[in-house]
Amino acid sequence: MSDPTPRRLHDPLLGDPVVTAWFTTEAQVQAMLEVEAALAAAEAEVGVVPVRCVAPIRAAARAELYDCAALAEALARSGAPAVPVARALTARVAAADPDAARYVHWGATSQDITDTALALQLREAGPRVVEHLGRATGAAAALARRFAETPMAGRTWLQQATPVSFGLKAAGWLDGLGRCRRRVSGALDDALVLQLGGATGTLAALGPRGIAVTEVLAARLGLAVADLPWHAYRDRVGALGCALGLATGVAGKVARDVSLLAQSEVAEAWEGGDDDRGGSSTMPHKRNPVGAAVALAAAARMPGLVAALLGTLPQEHERGLGGWQAEWDLVPDLVGVAAGGTRGLADCLERLVVDPERMCANLEASGGLPLSEAVAMTLADRLGRGAAREAVERACRRAVAEHRPLAEVLADDPVVSAEIDGATIARRLDPRHYLGAAQDFIGRALARHEDGD
Amino acid sequence: MSDPTPRRLHDPLLGDPVVTAWFTTEAQVQAMLEVEAALAAAEAEVGVVPVRCVAPIRAAARAELYDCAALAEALARSGAPAVPVARALTARVAAADPDAARYVHWGATSQDITDTALALQLREAGPRVVEHLGRATGAAAALARRFAETPMAGRTWLQQATPVSFGLKAAGWLDGLGRCRRRVSGALDDALVLQLGGATGTLAALGPRGIAVTEVLAARLGLAVADLPWHAYRDRVGALGCALGLATGVAGKVARDVSLLAQSEVAEAWEGGDDDRGGSSTMPHKRNPVGAAVALAAAARMPGLVAALLGTLPQEHERGLGGWQAEWDLVPDLVGVAAGGTRGLADCLERLVVDPERMCANLEASGGLPLSEAVAMTLADRLGRGAAREAVERACRRAVAEHRPLAEVLADDPVVSAEIDGATIARRLDPRHYLGAAQDFIGRALARHEDGD
Amino acid sequence: MSDPTPRRLHDPLLGDPVVTAWFTTEAQVQAMLEVEAALAAAEAEVGVVPVRCVAPIRAAARAELYDCAALAEALARSGAPAVPVARALTARVAAADPDAARYVHWGATSQDITDTALALQLREAGPRVVEHLGRATGAAAALARRFAETPMAGRTWLQQATPVSFGLKAAGWLDGLGRCRRRVSGALDDALVLQLGGATGTLAALGPRGIAVTEVLAARLGLAVADLPWHAYRDRVGALGCALGLATGVAGKVARDVSLLAQSEVAEAWEGGDDDRGGSSTMPHKRNPVGAAVALAAAARMPGLVAALLGTLPQEHERGLGGWQAEWDLVPDLVGVAAGGTRGLADCLERLVVDPERMCANLEASGGLPLSEAVAMTLADRLGRGAAREAVERACRRAVAEHRPLAEVLADDPVVSAEIDGATIARRLDPRHYLGAAQDFIGRALARHEDGD
Amino acid sequence: MSDPTPRRLHDPLLGDPVVTAWFTTEAQVQAMLEVEAALAAAEAEVGVVPVRCVAPIRAAARAELYDCAALAEALARSGAPAVPVARALTARVAAADPDAARYVHWGATSQDITDTALALQLREAGPRVVEHLGRATGAAAALARRFAETPMAGRTWLQQATPVSFGLKAAGWLDGLGRCRRRVSGALDDALVLQLGGATGTLAALGPRGIAVTEVLAARLGLAVADLPWHAYRDRVGALGCALGLATGVAGKVARDVSLLAQSEVAEAWEGGDDDRGGSSTMPHKRNPVGAAVALAAAARMPGLVAALLGTLPQEHERGLGGWQAEWDLVPDLVGVAAGGTRGLADCLERLVVDPERMCANLEASGGLPLSEAVAMTLADRLGRGAAREAVERACRRAVAEHRPLAEVLADDPVVSAEIDGATIARRLDPRHYLGAAQDFIGRALARHEDGD
Repeated sequence: MSDPTPRRLHDPLLGDPVVTAWFTTEAQVQAMLEVEAALAAAEAEVGVVPVRCVAPIRAAARAELYDCAALAEALARSGAPAVPVARALTARVAAADPDAARYVHWGATSQDITDTALALQLREAGPRVVEHLGRATGAAAALARRFAETPMAGRTWLQQATPVSFGLKAAGWLDGLGRCRRRVSGALDDALVLQLGGATGTLAALGPRGIAVTEVLAARLGLAVADLPWHAYRDRVGALGCALGLATGVAGKVARDVSLLAQSEVAEAWEGGDDDRGGSSTMPHKRNPVGAAVALAAAARMPGLVAALLGTLPQEHERGLGGWQAEWDLVPDLVGVAAGGTRGLADCLERLVVDPERMCANLEASGGLPLSEAVAMTLADRLGRGAAREAVERACRRAVAEHRPLAEVLADDPVVSAEIDGATIARRLDPRHYLGAAQDFIGRALARHEDGD
Repeated sequence: MSDPTPRRLHDPLLGDPVVTAWFTTEAQVQAMLEVEAALAAAEAEVGVVPVRCVAPIRAAARAELYDCAALAEALARSGAPAVPVARALTARVAAADPDAARYVHWGATSQDITDTALALQLREAGPRVVEHLGRATGAAAALARRFAETPMAGRTWLQQATPVSFGLKAAGWLDGLGRCRRRVSGALDDALVLQLGGATGTLAALGPRGIAVTEVLAARLGLAVADLPWHAYRDRVGALGCALGLATGVAGKVARDVSLLAQSEVAEAWEGGDDDRGGSSTMPHKRNPVGAAVALAAAARMPGLVAALLGTLPQEHERGLGGWQAEWDLVPDLVGVAAGGTRGLADCLERLVVDPERMCANLEASGGLPLSEAVAMTLADRLGRGAAREAVERACRRAVAEHRPLAEVLADDPVVSAEIDGATIARRLDPRHYLGAAQDFIGRALARHEDGD
Repeated sequence: MSDPTPRRLHDPLLGDPVVTAWFTTEAQVQAMLEVEAALAAAEAEVGVVPVRCVAPIRAAARAELYDCAALAEALARSGAPAVPVARALTARVAAADPDAARYVHWGATSQDITDTALALQLREAGPRVVEHLGRATGAAAALARRFAETPMAGRTWLQQATPVSFGLKAAGWLDGLGRCRRRVSGALDDALVLQLGGATGTLAALGPRGIAVTEVLAARLGLAVADLPWHAYRDRVGALGCALGLATGVAGKVARDVSLLAQSEVAEAWEGGDDDRGGSSTMPHKRNPVGAAVALAAAARMPGLVAALLGTLPQEHERGLGGWQAEWDLVPDLVGVAAGGTRGLADCLERLVVDPERMCANLEASGGLPLSEAVAMTLADRLGRGAAREAVERACRRAVAEHRPLAEVLADDPVVSAEIDGATIARRLDPRHYLGAAQDFIGRALARHEDGD
Repeated sequence: MSDPTPRRLHDPLLGDPVVTAWFTTEAQVQAMLEVEAALAAAEAEVGVVPVRCVAPIRAAARAELYDCAALAEALARSGAPAVPVARALTARVAAADPDAARYVHWGATSQDITDTALALQLREAGPRVVEHLGRATGAAAALARRFAETPMAGRTWLQQATPVSFGLKAAGWLDGLGRCRRRVSGALDDALVLQLGGATGTLAALGPRGIAVTEVLAARLGLAVADLPWHAYRDRVGALGCALGLATGVAGKVARDVSLLAQSEVAEAWEGGDDDRGGSSTMPHKRNPVGAAVALAAAARMPGLVAALLGTLPQEHERGLGGWQAEWDLVPDLVGVAAGGTRGLADCLERLVVDPERMCANLEASGGLPLSEAVAMTLADRLGRGAAREAVERACRRAVAEHRPLAEVLADDPVVSAEIDGATIARRLDPRHYLGAAQDFIGRALARHEDGD
């Protein structure tokens, strides 16, 4: 369904071809034709239109029968996507069966067709985001399990702080991404709602059988029925956009972590892969974090798309002017960028190469400073938090100034050595003994993941 | 708790004083002190700190004991809100009980305190939005009931289209606002989560009893426990921001409707009220829709706030740099703007004056054109949709060109009059007979509302 | 250069085909090839590479020689747009002249090529926005001239206020759009800057002749030279995005005005045109403001795009990660949406139908209320502003309550009639006599427009 | 003028007290009173009002005479900031001189007063941003000069690439910040425009002398005169917001660089300062980059504020509904956040501690890999770009795999050693010899800076 040459050179990198394919001209025309065909069938079932009109309409409801470029041009005049499609469908049905043609688009307004088609398109394209998030959580879970006890520097404000394990970091990724996956899934379900209201949402053109048609049509299309037509109430679509925005943002968080771990000076983890990937035209030794860059680029684009979508909510009266039209690109872009970003992250995590030795070396390079808290907590039991902190700060400053390991400086400090001996200091400065509840946290994240996330 | 003079002149108009009060310097200091006191109590309960330290800490945990301006200045140096507060608290406890002072802030990182305090502040401030939405849905429900059968022009693309009833329009408001109210309520519940992780989220400083402290502290504060500390995972806060953004957007939609109905040339509904309200300094006759303007102003501000919040999600490693600090203003602003906007809308809807006669007159002024569809549908049964549309379009063009009522022109048209007589035309052009499923839709919206929305 | 079927069904409506064409895969590849060819020529001129390599490189620098889909796939692996292009170009040159192939992409980094190509693309696509704004200002100027003395209701807060002339309203459009046109033009000039820095912006690979190459290359391509390479400094591109955002916003303001004037109940001006345009599938009599909707949709999308662009500014070190990649879609989208929106507005204004009689009738329908200020100002000379305002407010309330013309009520009022007689009242309530400096303002706007705007 | 306790605890850290002070309730009231007083004086000069009314109005135009909290409450009813102020001023003037009171606010609409007051507020608050940018460029210039020849790793995609000098990096900061400073300065000048139009922008209430009043008033206030009143045309304010957004974004870029250089594993530069600054409550050894965090937080908030401002541009007719009201907080927030962010960056750069030895060590730790390009370029002269790249890539892979210095591996490589000897390799791998045009670029940036930036 997609064009062989991508619209923009970078589409295969930044986007998701499956999502792209579901929002092409042809795919949208096909989705609208499906809705028209199902509408006729539902109306026939309820007795609003004759049963004999259904087959000819269904037969003509195939996008390949139409000149999509011409439909696009016609839309540029009419202003509403379903208008040229309904006209072309009517003409084609009329050629085969003039009587059936009378019942094409019966009782619907063009926005009914476009919005319901959008629900069908979202049903196909949206799960790609869920799928990519599933791959990413799967990869994160594997890392959390494998490196549960691998110590590394925790980092706050980009400064080394008390140690964590790499498994705990991966469990954090898993936890955040899993929550986003459930959120996207739920918002997608909520947004898959039939639109049928006629010109102003009264279904007046269907006479007394409007609601019956609505129910049959929804069942045929596998969509939910809303309490009211929602032509000018786009909050369900908005909520989906928000869920996608949150997921892309958390994916960006994970990607930022990876990109920082992959820095030449840190080198604790990086995106592996085939030779070609992430190569630089001028720097043959580089291994650029391509997947992370894709996820970060998506995270940079999403907030503006969500803002634009929220900004279109105040639509006028029964059907608005401008806001709805803005949605025509916003929704495909939101799904496409979210899918591209989460795909980038999944690729990144699945090919992540981890260097536990370097993690250890980086921790040690700080001469024990990040573990000063462990000593301070032990001392605090004896000296109080204030005095303990003061003693440890003094030792840290001296360690930094004299380029000496903290253990040594602490052992030299009379206040400290009066309270704890060198062996205790050494034990307290061993990161493996200062991981707190890390194992519990990893266990919780894995348990929720295995519970069906 | 709030200052007697608002910070900016328009705060009482655009904001919500209750929300403002919960995010002042004093209120935040108080919330952080509450957390420190509860932390000591929980740690004593679990046996991490001695029970005797709890009372002195609790006694000192009152904001009025501190120079909040000095705390703010100290924060400008330390960079983290809880640091100066913990120091000041420690100093004050030490003055009374040096031993107890050793256990202030035990095992926590400053972000634990600030984030948990935020949850406490949100628990107080957030429900204001739910409350205003409740007032707005209440007012909309009353309008939906009262004007269920009052016909008015439906309007699409700002053009008159087939009629609706004003009750149906109000039911749409009710439906959208009710959905947003449930969404804000749910997101608020999800965001009321304890933060306790220590420096890098391992709880290492609490030794083997970290998780026990977490559970007791959460129970004491009435907050939920997260699977993992969430220092760098802000998606729950983000989801709350999204829900507030959606609610403010839908409130803006309703406000836009009201502002359009209140136009001098439409004059179907307007904000009533005391003489002073909405007066203009130069145009004494005007009645400006002040509540609607407030709601629309809020709807204009929210998308950017939500975007900024989503943009802060990619925070670095265990605790980020810049993103979290940006949240300090974003979250109070998001709650404040949402509360201000929904309050404006509630005021607007509660004082809405409706003019059913003008609704009728505006419909009639179009000479029946908006009801042309009703005739077209009737004719379509006989002529097919294409031919029927053609005949009615022709009549409409003639009615417009000759400034004659559509009924008359239709009766004159040989194609039309061959199929339907003048009485049928008149019946089809009576808006009361062309409201379709409006009553059902109103009933559904009211039922869901009464079901506890 | 563009695909015959638009990517999305609505592209011909919402977009600008010329802009679309300049940002396709093929167009970008061609632009990058141009840069590579010009680079070789400049380097040969300066003596960095042999002159004999130029012709073979130039000969191979035609996009149609390459499989663009394959280049896009290769980009998905390498992560940088110019990498596969440089490789493919090298291979093709090598086939013809292995020696020349050694000098392809000499001394450049891939971002040099992509950014400079972007400048070339912007030089072609950007002026479309200026052009559409030129059409819109031309149309506004014609309206300002033609309707300079046609009175209509001024409207504030969507309420009728003191009168304006339609020419003054159009002069406001002209003034705002003209300012935006100059702004876009200026920002475009500022953004057309060569990028050449090599891997980290030092031009080290070009040895001592880096700056000379830069100057010759810029001259050949007709681009400006920056003081420093700007790989991670995207503020010029950002400033262009801002100018486009401002222009689209002001276009949205004009479109909003038109859409409000076109309301069925106002009907003072509307988009005319061929039968097909703006028709509705269910409401044959409607004339939807399609151009205004396009401009408003663009105005809804732009702020989020600008925000995303600004959000990408903090790029890391010499060349960033994520931010630059986000730009690859943001910039084409910004130019495309701005071009689509301003084109929609130009179409709208060029086909605007104006009904001066209806303008008059709408003013009169308010029974003189919007002109109450004129009476109040006259009375204020005698009674003071407070008392005058009070008297006029009282009369306005009475006129509204009793559905009587204001002139009559004022004449009946003893306070008022003690000061001014009925003829004075009538004169003061004639909108043609209360247009203040409207003619001067129109004259100023036209003069600046004719001065070369 | 500001309250002694900041509104929010973090205001002294994230904001700028001077900007805050210019947007308080009291400051806004004072600015509006100034405008009212100047209006009376200008109207007296032109002969529209009697000269004797000027002194009493001027005497009453002092904010401290009014109950600002009461004005704020009154605004909550009237909906327009200048309405309660004009009323209170009139009442106070009336108490002293009833005749003079008749001429308060003569011929103006409330928005005239508020917008002109905003221009006065911006004239005072806006230059703070220029000032902070001036401090930042000053500091960057000093760094550029001092470290012009200090080599350090260039970094792209967060990977070490060819070397730069720290002076070149600082020159990039200088170049970008200087451009932003000029942009903010220019946009501020453009935005300092008088607003005077009366109810609908015709100046009708001033009769034939409206334009004369405008000119005299502008001269008295030191503001520019616009071609037309701009009540509903907010693009100049929007352009100022954009310039502030760009400046804050570039400040964020510099702050991101500093925060990355300050990482424990990089440690090439960091924010120095007093002991207290950036300390952590749990990690005594840490030195958090507080100024950089402030700048990054501002950069995270600004895009959403700019987007909201752009989103308010489509204001309705002569004076809009909602959009203008949104501006009341957006503009102070934009200036405040920009001032806070640029102040944070200025503080950061002024106290930056640089470690040239660590820069050198980090470069060397990569075993020459970042300089592989230098060798590749030299080899390319002999082998062609392709073969040279291949040889160097092979050597790089081997150096990485065998943990050996690149120089050694290259010397071992028969293809390489056939072309260049070990001394050449060593020279090519010396970063000081591979800085290209860095000195020229630094010179250019400094020259433009000294030229009055």
